[in-house]
Amino acid sequence: MTNSLLASIQSPEDVRKLDKSDIPRLAREIRKTIIDVVGTNGGHLSSNLGVVELTIALHRVFSSPQDAFIWDVGHQCYTHKLLTGRYDHFSTIRKRDGLSGFPKHVESPHDIFDTGHSSTSISAALGLRLSRQITGDPGKVIAIIGDGALTGGMALEALSHAGETGRDLVVVLNDNKMSISRNTGALSEYLSRLTMGASYQRFRSKVDRIISAIPLFGAPLTRMVHRLKRGVKGMLFKDNLFVDLGFEYVGPLNGHSVEELEKVFRDVRALNRPVVVHVQTCKGKGYSLAEDDPSTFHGIGPFCISDGKVEKFDTTSFTEAFSRALLECAEKNPRVAAVTAAMSRGTGLVPFQHRYPDRFFDVGIAEQHAVTLAGGLAVGGLSPVVAIYSTFMQRAVDQLIHDVALQNLPVVFALDRSGAVPDDGETHQGIFDIALFRPVPGLSILTPASAAEMRLMLVWALEQGSPVLIRYPKAPCPTEQEAFSLPVVSGRGVFVQREALDTLIVCTGGMYSEVHEAANLLGRSGKPVDILNLRFVKPLDEAWFLDAVHGYRNVVFVEDGVITGSISRDLAALLHTRSTVVYTDVLAFQEIFYPQGNRSEILTAAGLSPAHIADCVAALRERSLSDSFL
Amino acid sequence: MTNSLLASIQSPEDVRKLDKSDIPRLAREIRKTIIDVVGTNGGHLSSNLGVVELTIALHRVFSSPQDAFIWDVGHQCYTHKLLTGRYDHFSTIRKRDGLSGFPKHVESPHDIFDTGHSSTSISAALGLRLSRQITGDPGKVIAIIGDGALTGGMALEALSHAGETGRDLVVVLNDNKMSISRNTGALSEYLSRLTMGASYQRFRSKVDRIISAIPLFGAPLTRMVHRLKRGVKGMLFKDNLFVDLGFEYVGPLNGHSVEELEKVFRDVRALNRPVVVHVQTCKGKGYSLAEDDPSTFHGIGPFCISDGKVEKFDTTSFTEAFSRALLECAEKNPRVAAVTAAMSRGTGLVPFQHRYPDRFFDVGIAEQHAVTLAGGLAVGGLSPVVAIYSTFMQRAVDQLIHDVALQNLPVVFALDRSGAVPDDGETHQGIFDIALFRPVPGLSILTPASAAEMRLMLVWALEQGSPVLIRYPKAPCPTEQEAFSLPVVSGRGVFVQREALDTLIVCTGGMYSEVHEAANLLGRSGKPVDILNLRFVKPLDEAWFLDAVHGYRNVVFVEDGVITGSISRDLAALLHTRSTVVYTDVLAFQEIFYPQGNRSEILTAAGLSPAHIADCVAALRERSLSDSFL
Repeated sequence: MTNSLLASIQSPEDVRKLDKSDIPRLAREIRKTIIDVVGTNGGHLSSNLGVVELTIALHRVFSSPQDAFIWDVGHQCYTHKLLTGRYDHFSTIRKRDGLSGFPKHVESPHDIFDTGHSSTSISAALGLRLSRQITGDPGKVIAIIGDGALTGGMALEALSHAGETGRDLVVVLNDNKMSISRNTGALSEYLSRLTMGASYQRFRSKVDRIISAIPLFGAPLTRMVHRLKRGVKGMLFKDNLFVDLGFEYVGPLNGHSVEELEKVFRDVRALNRPVVVHVQTCKGKGYSLAEDDPSTFHGIGPFCISDGKVEKFDTTSFTEAFSRALLECAEKNPRVAAVTAAMSRGTGLVPFQHRYPDRFFDVGIAEQHAVTLAGGLAVGGLSPVVAIYSTFMQRAVDQLIHDVALQNLPVVFALDRSGAVPDDGETHQGIFDIALFRPVPGLSILTPASAAEMRLMLVWALEQGSPVLIRYPKAPCPTEQEAFSLPVVSGRGVFVQREALDTLIVCTGGMYSEVHEAANLLGRSGKPVDILNLRFVKPLDEAWFLDAVHGYRNVVFVEDGVITGSISRDLAALLHTRSTVVYTDVLAFQEIFYPQGNRSEILTAAGLSPAHIADCVAALRERSLSDSFL
Repeated sequence: MTNSLLASIQSPEDVRKLDKSDIPRLAREIRKTIIDVVGTNGGHLSSNLGVVELTIALHRVFSSPQDAFIWDVGHQCYTHKLLTGRYDHFSTIRKRDGLSGFPKHVESPHDIFDTGHSSTSISAALGLRLSRQITGDPGKVIAIIGDGALTGGMALEALSHAGETGRDLVVVLNDNKMSISRNTGALSEYLSRLTMGASYQRFRSKVDRIISAIPLFGAPLTRMVHRLKRGVKGMLFKDNLFVDLGFEYVGPLNGHSVEELEKVFRDVRALNRPVVVHVQTCKGKGYSLAEDDPSTFHGIGPFCISDGKVEKFDTTSFTEAFSRALLECAEKNPRVAAVTAAMSRGTGLVPFQHRYPDRFFDVGIAEQHAVTLAGGLAVGGLSPVVAIYSTFMQRAVDQLIHDVALQNLPVVFALDRSGAVPDDGETHQGIFDIALFRPVPGLSILTPASAAEMRLMLVWALEQGSPVLIRYPKAPCPTEQEAFSLPVVSGRGVFVQREALDTLIVCTGGMYSEVHEAANLLGRSGKPVDILNLRFVKPLDEAWFLDAVHGYRNVVFVEDGVITGSISRDLAALLHTRSTVVYTDVLAFQEIFYPQGNRSEILTAAGLSPAHIADCVAALRERSLSDSFL
């Protein structure tokens, strides 16, 4: 099958022009394209296969970009990209300089609001809708949000505000887990279609009139009549959470019937009130391996299309190292508990979940609640470990400060995907955590350089009786070194290499692999360097540090966090005032948003590749030497 | 009236022992005590007067601290403090070294979880409840949350999780605005009491059995039966949002009838499922001025009890300066909009709200939604200004990074209550904002030193087309100086005083008053200093800065943010490597949580009082001089 029909689509207008008999073929071509490209590039498969028909129907009824689609999370936007003039470049998706795997306004006017994190779409859509009230710009605003994303608090905040405004916002609830409602079946579909039609509206008005006409006999009866009214309406009109919040509600609809969806969307387009359109879709639809196991194919690396096998790191990843270390700790200590916000797989908690279900808490996409819940668990005497991605921890800064650190509660935070995060792009980089959390009183921050060090640090963290954050990258663990297994001493790091006389590299654990390679490069060219693995970003024992670097003439810091607020910059400043070190350089992420690429590409862009580290060390030594000959 | 009954209460046990005929007197004595003390010390009046009976009833039925009360926000805990052995110290509330105005676990075992920010109680309570499942510790867990706090997303996240767990958590919904439900009246009260009783349980089981016994005839009819069942139950049992989420629901109850409350709490105590007890209270109850205008008496400074008049700053406050400047901007530019999260009064937005209701958006206690909504407004072509307290902005770090800065959207953030915040204590200090937001790419951060500078900065901010944050303290504006009205140039500050030869103080705007006073002290003792008002925390034009300080031998930085991540520390480091300045000192908040006090007390504790600034400058100059004689 060639993708000739899909290839002919240059814009949403072309989608609208298609005869409905062509739609199944278009959907097939889209699915084939997505499976082929994700199989090669990696990406979000299940969610994209689930919304093919939904996206087609949306583009056939609404006129993007005048009508604005805001995709929550955004990883399900592949069909949208294919239908808005980006088919030709689709094979570059998630590659450096290629199409983003998320909506990006710089990429297309059809991507009106950038997303990546969850639960933001209704807020953004409502903002856009309210602004049009003032500017007079026409066009509908449509937020497309999954049932998972709807558990995020800010989505509920936005729903509640949107219902109150009464403006004609369209919220498409893409329900692919049936977790919101069990009201499926033929009758529901019938009622949904009916709901929006003219006959329904007439019927509803009639019932309203009849009920309102019942005379009132004092307060108690009035209340009873109100209850009766709600009861009757509940039976007839499906009053539910959304209706309570001021929305019209339609659904659930079959999310794989373009015809049914189009019909309802046309009615919805004419509506002048906020409305939730509840659409049921099947994750992984059309690719049986993904339909059977949507979780594995949620966000995936390149895989073999025929058997679904995924490429893997050859060695243990930091995630796996954490996963094993936590199991070990939990085995020895019955008070160790684990908390995740819908990321049990990504954070390596699945083995814990199976082994200790009673001590495992998955709160859904709700990072704020996750952190404060852990605070409550700690007050109750448990030792909770909150495993969360660095970028998503940005959602719970206040909870860490206000609900954990302020009471000095023994909560351990395991921040996966810190530093450079492959493939997902700007929204998912983990470069802010050090800067955000270093100022928090009483919090310890550690950066393991290996699996053994991860284990030691987790054990140490659980013994502290105060909050500890352990951050590590999405990367394979390097080969173990003796130094990694030295006992953890608060505030102190370890020398991994200590032979050279004049030059030292000081690094956070997540950069050890690159620093090690840089040291090898330098060693091979006859200019060996020593390596000090900081271990602690906080607290940092300054006396120990000054002693450790004593005697070095040149010190280069390498850190996988943003330069502003980095520990490296402060340590370099310390050396200038308090030590005999004369030359320093600080290598860290600059104060910019880093676009997608693999780990090596991102580090290269940030000047943190082994080659660049080696060059900077060599240049610093050069300068140092030439100055000493002056 | 003496408070002899209240004075006799040493612990909750004494409350339980009281004859119910004594309760009205106890309530009166509590109200009198609260009004007297808040009139003198300032504090949260309306909310505390509203929950007197509710708190008495809770303490008569549950056994604190075994049964754990978690007070959401916590500013309504005065009666709780009075009944848990703190009557003798109550007159010290909100004073330095006195009782906190919020629950504090270090103060009493009856304060099991510290609060201050909104919407955290259900998460913390659920965590504690789940931990007891594992530790086997007995006792109920009770979260007391207001209807306002319930609009915060994390409270909804927690409700949803709690409902799912099915554990016997008690959520007392303190509804003082009737915004959640209009189902008031005698019948409702009757039904509520009935709900928990044995007869109700029997009746419910019976209905359940009858409905379940209806035979099924295939899927469509099953659905219809389910709908019918829900409809019938909805009429009989008040199905609502909470029931949808898996909670039992009781209410609404009269929150000022201890008898009614006790009766229901006794039933609730026996229940083995999550339950919402909906209690209606009247804010300000018992003090007519506060009943009539609860908002004014929400959080209040010392006031005159007979006429309710409040002490005020003699001069314009920064809040007022912002308020006026925003009105001016909005008048000239019809695209300027304002967003607040339930703080229109505190942030000075009330005049804007009245003058431009169409462009004013109060989203309720929902900081996350507020910021992303502003992102949507900006995409739609408006110039939104989000006015928010510094400490509450910790709730929306990710939204600022991910939904605003990443797309470089022109949203202006007005951060009131930055730096030292009087009276509220640890939870409300605004000392983290500079450190949290400095690393954010593309964001500008400004700190006005006066009303005139506020105006200039707001005008500048609205012209940028990129995100700008303006931060300022809860303090009176200082007398205007010529320098404050100089045009704003990106990244550059202004000299407010430039006469001395060798010593310079560099400060953020919020510290100008103290720096000015320090300079006066120094001047009077014949050691004049110059003052450079930084204006910009970010971006900072380094070339300009190096040029500005050129020629000074001693530079002291004064910043009202935490030292870690401060601009001052980075600038001091810059001087050491790139300038001829030899001596520097950095004065900022240390990395600790600062307890309550007035502004001057907090600044003194932080070493930021005028006297201490002057001492540090003098000491630095001393050292500098003695070194030059060596």
